Amino acid sequence: MNSSLIQKLILPTETKIVMLIMDGFGGLPREAGGKTELETARTPNLDKLARRSNLGLIIPVAPGITPGSGPGHLGLFGYDPIQFEIGRGAMEALGVDFELGPDDLAARGNYCTIDQRGLITDRRAGRIGTNINQALSGLLSSIKIEAAEIFIKPVKEHRFAFILRAQGLYDALSETDPQKTGVAPLAVCALDEKSIKAADLVNRFIAHAQKALADQTPANMILLRGFARLPVLPTYQERYGLRAAAIAVNGMYRGVARMVGMQVLPLESDTLEGQFTTLENNWGEFDFFYLHVKKTDTFGESGDFDGKVAAIEEVDALMPRLLSLKPDVVIVGGDHSSPAVMKSHSWHPVPLLIYSPFVRADGLPEFGERTCTLGSLGTFPATHIMPLALANALRITKYGA
Amino acid sequence: MNSSLIQKLILPTETKIVMLIMDGFGGLPREAGGKTELETARTPNLDKLARRSNLGLIIPVAPGITPGSGPGHLGLFGYDPIQFEIGRGAMEALGVDFELGPDDLAARGNYCTIDQRGLITDRRAGRIGTNINQALSGLLSSIKIEAAEIFIKPVKEHRFAFILRAQGLYDALSETDPQKTGVAPLAVCALDEKSIKAADLVNRFIAHAQKALADQTPANMILLRGFARLPVLPTYQERYGLRAAAIAVNGMYRGVARMVGMQVLPLESDTLEGQFTTLENNWGEFDFFYLHVKKTDTFGESGDFDGKVAAIEEVDALMPRLLSLKPDVVIVGGDHSSPAVMKSHSWHPVPLLIYSPFVRADGLPEFGERTCTLGSLGTFPATHIMPLALANALRITKYGA
Repeated sequence: MNSSLIQKLILPTETKIVMLIMDGFGGLPREAGGKTELETARTPNLDKLARRSNLGLIIPVAPGITPGSGPGHLGLFGYDPIQFEIGRGAMEALGVDFELGPDDLAARGNYCTIDQRGLITDRRAGRIGTNINQALSGLLSSIKIEAAEIFIKPVKEHRFAFILRAQGLYDALSETDPQKTGVAPLAVCALDEKSIKAADLVNRFIAHAQKALADQTPANMILLRGFARLPVLPTYQERYGLRAAAIAVNGMYRGVARMVGMQVLPLESDTLEGQFTTLENNWGEFDFFYLHVKKTDTFGESGDFDGKVAAIEEVDALMPRLLSLKPDVVIVGGDHSSPAVMKSHSWHPVPLLIYSPFVRADGLPEFGERTCTLGSLGTFPATHIMPLALANALRITKYGA
Repeated sequence: MNSSLIQKLILPTETKIVMLIMDGFGGLPREAGGKTELETARTPNLDKLARRSNLGLIIPVAPGITPGSGPGHLGLFGYDPIQFEIGRGAMEALGVDFELGPDDLAARGNYCTIDQRGLITDRRAGRIGTNINQALSGLLSSIKIEAAEIFIKPVKEHRFAFILRAQGLYDALSETDPQKTGVAPLAVCALDEKSIKAADLVNRFIAHAQKALADQTPANMILLRGFARLPVLPTYQERYGLRAAAIAVNGMYRGVARMVGMQVLPLESDTLEGQFTTLENNWGEFDFFYLHVKKTDTFGESGDFDGKVAAIEEVDALMPRLLSLKPDVVIVGGDHSSPAVMKSHSWHPVPLLIYSPFVRADGLPEFGERTCTLGSLGTFPATHIMPLALANALRITKYGA
């Protein structure tokens, strides 16, 4: 790892870096030999920028690995996503915009149905409506456990995020979901000595929850899995000397940004235009801006090729506003691929562009998967982006004499 | 290392992967500016496949390192060839198709000549004929050592493979070959405590062997070097969840495949056609097929440029039979380069092609060293091939949320 080397070489300066991330950016052609979503999109502004940039393809986690959004973003931010694993419970809590702290233990929760003998008959309680979930979560939130705080945040249908806040919690815990029906929910077991306290508190909470839900139908019990604390990461300030800001609509991305010490900015509005306005309004206050575009992934995952093309074109149309701020370094890329033809995240390397006045420009004619294949950055790990961005921002001093 | 990560993410499915390896595949132009063996070969079937594939160049072990066949294959199979070293003795035993097991200690043996004072006069016993070697090896095979088994397998001329089988053998042993004449063969010394038993058994065997050979001329003594046990590797089944089969003629490749848990298939015949028939006849039984072509290397090492070109063309002509099986993923590459102009293995990166319905095809016009340079896979470590193959076979689930 070069992270400690980079940290030692960081120079304080006034330059500004913008990292524009389109979620699920990379794609595949609709038919063999055709164009990808990005190649199909009319992107005159990105193409013009690409001609003055370095292009390449990033490997978000490792070759062949399809990343979730958490690992995909950690790589972009320069943290090895295999070394720093974000547990499922923590991701669930971040996803509902919960500000997870160092004393918090999180889990993924399900409302479920048990019969009179206490055996599970439906692990998802018939996928109850989100409104019922909200009422039940209000009920569970009122449970009191000594020397601990409980937060229950409804997600969708039968799913919720569970957060237990207390001193000295560790997350080596077994799950309560037996993953089948006809058996009783499991008790939480501590898998190491220091997690005993957490296991005890969670089991006490579950007992209270079972009583509180006893009269409900069909959601009369809960299942908890993926217990996780937030990994402790060196911050952007510590590692890169950057005052960093995040401009993201969705909770998960705001959460990951907060985890690396970015300030998550309140948005002018939830629209893409609102995000660009937020960037403009905060331009003077930060050295680094992470701007996250969700729509590209949403369309990719739903298999809407044309929708993803349009989402990319919408970003392109706003590029002049970003460029008129005169950032010293511009990065445009994605956290992973979500090809519309696959309707899912995928392992395919993701197009990336780095612009600064100091790049040895590749002079390739446009921004697309195929031109990125020919770019001078090659096919390379996402964790290299931040060192390259800092170098182009003249924020890394010489190593050795 | 990502191997444990991959292992955690493996999905069980029905897809099939074929890895077609031409030994010593990579080449060099006959004259500066000319075409390599692969570029010279008429390969309409491989070229057509290449247009729908990802191309790249693999680094078998590390930049600048010329691999032997053992390390070259370990990399292809996804095992770091520096971490998992196959000792010379083990390679020699595998090379004569000996089924090395976990209790076996192997070494490379030479018949040599000593004078009446016991000093070596010829380290190779005048390169005795292989038939004499066979007779002597029969003689040595009859030697009995308490609580151990001895196997002596003739190779060629003065060379043989020595295998000692007993419980608790370790291989930190010095060699008996002093690498010069005019001195006596050395005794084997244990280089660590736990190898003392093996040293003792080997020295006892050598004393017996010297007596048994005393009346022979010129091969009246043996030298042993490269003591090695088989490294213990996680199998294809454990690591990738694959039922894997090997279709290889030569012992060394069959041995390396067996070492990673592949089932080595009996061959229809020793011809290339026979290997393809074996593939067809076993198609239903396995998820992964490794098919090894030896001729390309044989011609490369003997400096026969045209012979190597013809060997590649012979493989190309059989490609339709492979493709008509409709494998989900096809990999075509080599374990190392053996340019005919060098008459030896070399360090040059090796052309590689990965085809699946899910590749973002590079659309390059043919399969050759120069097009592979332009491929989206870039120049990359051989150990990345298996994760990419598994991803394209939809056998790896998403990492993180």
